[in-house]
Amino acid sequence: MSVNLRIPGPTPCDEDVLKAMSRQMINHRGPEFREILGRITVGLQEMFETKNDVLTMTSAGTGALESAVVNTLSPDDRVLCVSIGVFGDRFADIGTTYGASVEKLSFPQGTAADPAAVADALKKDASFKAVMVTHNETSTGVTNDLGAIAKAIRGVRPDILILVDAISSLGSVPLPIDAWDLDVVFTGSQKGWMVPPGMAMVAVSKRAWAAAETARIPRYYFDYKKAKSYLEKGETPWTPAVSVYFAMDVALVKLRKEGLANIHARHAKLGQFTRDGVKALGLQLLADERVASNTVTAVRVPDGVDGPELNKLMRTEYNTVLAGGQGPLTGKIFRIGHLGLVSQPDLQACLDALKLALPRVGFTPTAAAAR
Amino acid sequence: MSVNLRIPGPTPCDEDVLKAMSRQMINHRGPEFREILGRITVGLQEMFETKNDVLTMTSAGTGALESAVVNTLSPDDRVLCVSIGVFGDRFADIGTTYGASVEKLSFPQGTAADPAAVADALKKDASFKAVMVTHNETSTGVTNDLGAIAKAIRGVRPDILILVDAISSLGSVPLPIDAWDLDVVFTGSQKGWMVPPGMAMVAVSKRAWAAAETARIPRYYFDYKKAKSYLEKGETPWTPAVSVYFAMDVALVKLRKEGLANIHARHAKLGQFTRDGVKALGLQLLADERVASNTVTAVRVPDGVDGPELNKLMRTEYNTVLAGGQGPLTGKIFRIGHLGLVSQPDLQACLDALKLALPRVGFTPTAAAAR
Repeated sequence: MSVNLRIPGPTPCDEDVLKAMSRQMINHRGPEFREILGRITVGLQEMFETKNDVLTMTSAGTGALESAVVNTLSPDDRVLCVSIGVFGDRFADIGTTYGASVEKLSFPQGTAADPAAVADALKKDASFKAVMVTHNETSTGVTNDLGAIAKAIRGVRPDILILVDAISSLGSVPLPIDAWDLDVVFTGSQKGWMVPPGMAMVAVSKRAWAAAETARIPRYYFDYKKAKSYLEKGETPWTPAVSVYFAMDVALVKLRKEGLANIHARHAKLGQFTRDGVKALGLQLLADERVASNTVTAVRVPDGVDGPELNKLMRTEYNTVLAGGQGPLTGKIFRIGHLGLVSQPDLQACLDALKLALPRVGFTPTAAAAR
Repeated sequence: MSVNLRIPGPTPCDEDVLKAMSRQMINHRGPEFREILGRITVGLQEMFETKNDVLTMTSAGTGALESAVVNTLSPDDRVLCVSIGVFGDRFADIGTTYGASVEKLSFPQGTAADPAAVADALKKDASFKAVMVTHNETSTGVTNDLGAIAKAIRGVRPDILILVDAISSLGSVPLPIDAWDLDVVFTGSQKGWMVPPGMAMVAVSKRAWAAAETARIPRYYFDYKKAKSYLEKGETPWTPAVSVYFAMDVALVKLRKEGLANIHARHAKLGQFTRDGVKALGLQLLADERVASNTVTAVRVPDGVDGPELNKLMRTEYNTVLAGGQGPLTGKIFRIGHLGLVSQPDLQACLDALKLALPRVGFTPTAAAAR
């Protein structure tokens, strides 16, 4: 029996994608790779709903966060970072690490950012050069209303840079990059793309390119200009994770065939199914349900239950791998990933396993939930 | 008939390594990955002949070059960069990009660095904090006598940092890191390791760790300290290219079984075989043969022959993929990779194809060579 891998990435991959991973190496500076990179670029532009340049890099998603900072900002640039969790904080940390003057606008765990509060912060200080925002906060299972946030930002500052961590949202939930006028938006292959990790993908707007011209934070490996100049000849500046490109090439055919609307509907349905199932077990969601994520659900560890012990039991006896909490939420939540290659039976199996495992680690459902 | 991929990386991979690439995803923060990362770390330490910390990162080799700079240096630090080609120049460029004051000590194309000249440069200026050096210069097919260079450096400056680009040498030709007292030494999975690209591996000495404590160049994605703290719990700080770790785990078993001495002897034999074969065709090596590389051979494009046309003919009609020249050597050389998974018959087939292809692009062997 295969493992029910229910973490929010790496997600399971389909057999044909895994088969592509096992292809023999090719010359990354030859015609075959050029064609693959060309197809991937066009496919991602379609899935990203953008005419902006789309660049790929061999790195984890955190490399993409770093790239957004180092390519568009200079030391001492004022940046507003809208944070609703660990990954928002990470974006701010990276900005600070590279010398930007980051002001963090934080919202409580489990809630989304308030677009009006973002607009207010920008009104109070006209010196901000960029806004950082996480679309889907993987650590709390909350999706920001990015469309509303972007509209609020543009209402105050039509030309400010908007840098978006869309690692666990892009391709899974609606994010029309051009319609929302976003400048740097990035994701990673191991999320809704159903491809193993190793590739980060980033869309770069004209406004971001203009910023890159004057941005003085040093950069080399993650330099967008180098990536673009090589892309124009069908290459990457540095040796790419060729196998992950093979896999992405295969996955994009399937994703484009399914179509964005269907993919989004699938994630919405499975997100709702998971939340309903979790509540029916008598468990509480971390997220305010109005803003709960359709790619990952964070569940509060019930009083008297040891979170890591529950995850261990689920793994060792129920063949189900959950994610734990991160940062301040360590031990306080567990998380169920439902993005990419996941079906309702997978989630039902996960819920069934939880139902059996929870009493074994001391959980007593409330009467209301047990009905 | 499979392609004869004769570029200096990505190298072909064995079937079992490719099969490992197609394994289903696992939790990169779970016990199975912890075991894999542990085995890889121990295996690499053995192959690196070091007791230093060995860190792995999801990136191309260039990410490792960047990591060596940003983890050990501060802006304005004086660095001596020993360059014998494109990759030496790249190391210097990265240093300069991040604000180091890099003095380049260059040697002519096709030659190796002179250890005495390196020592002299250090004697002239006591302010150098680090020396950058390329072990094997992939762009020219030259291997520096790193042991002699390290000895010359230590003779003048016992405690200076020695940063070594060993991307295309480590694991293929002798490089005892501890015996030569080297501080940061790195390679990439797609070279002699016979694994697809996506992982960079770096050995970090105590001296380098001490330097990292005071190094002020900003760093985040490539931060060694973060990598080490996560390694201690069996993880990487950012989502790793899990499949490449699966593959490395398999490849290291084979490499350790073969043993370093045998691996080195195999590369030495195939390097000599290639050079002899190339000369027998009436072609000239770029490298001074006394310092010619055992992992890649650079061959001068004969007068009257169009280099890219030769490579294209070899690819399209002889199923053999050669590398071209880089930077100032574009069009002037072609290169034959013979590292990792390559046999004498592969190289014989490559030489046989060259013998047929060369006359078709206008080459007339000299009488001496034709004998």
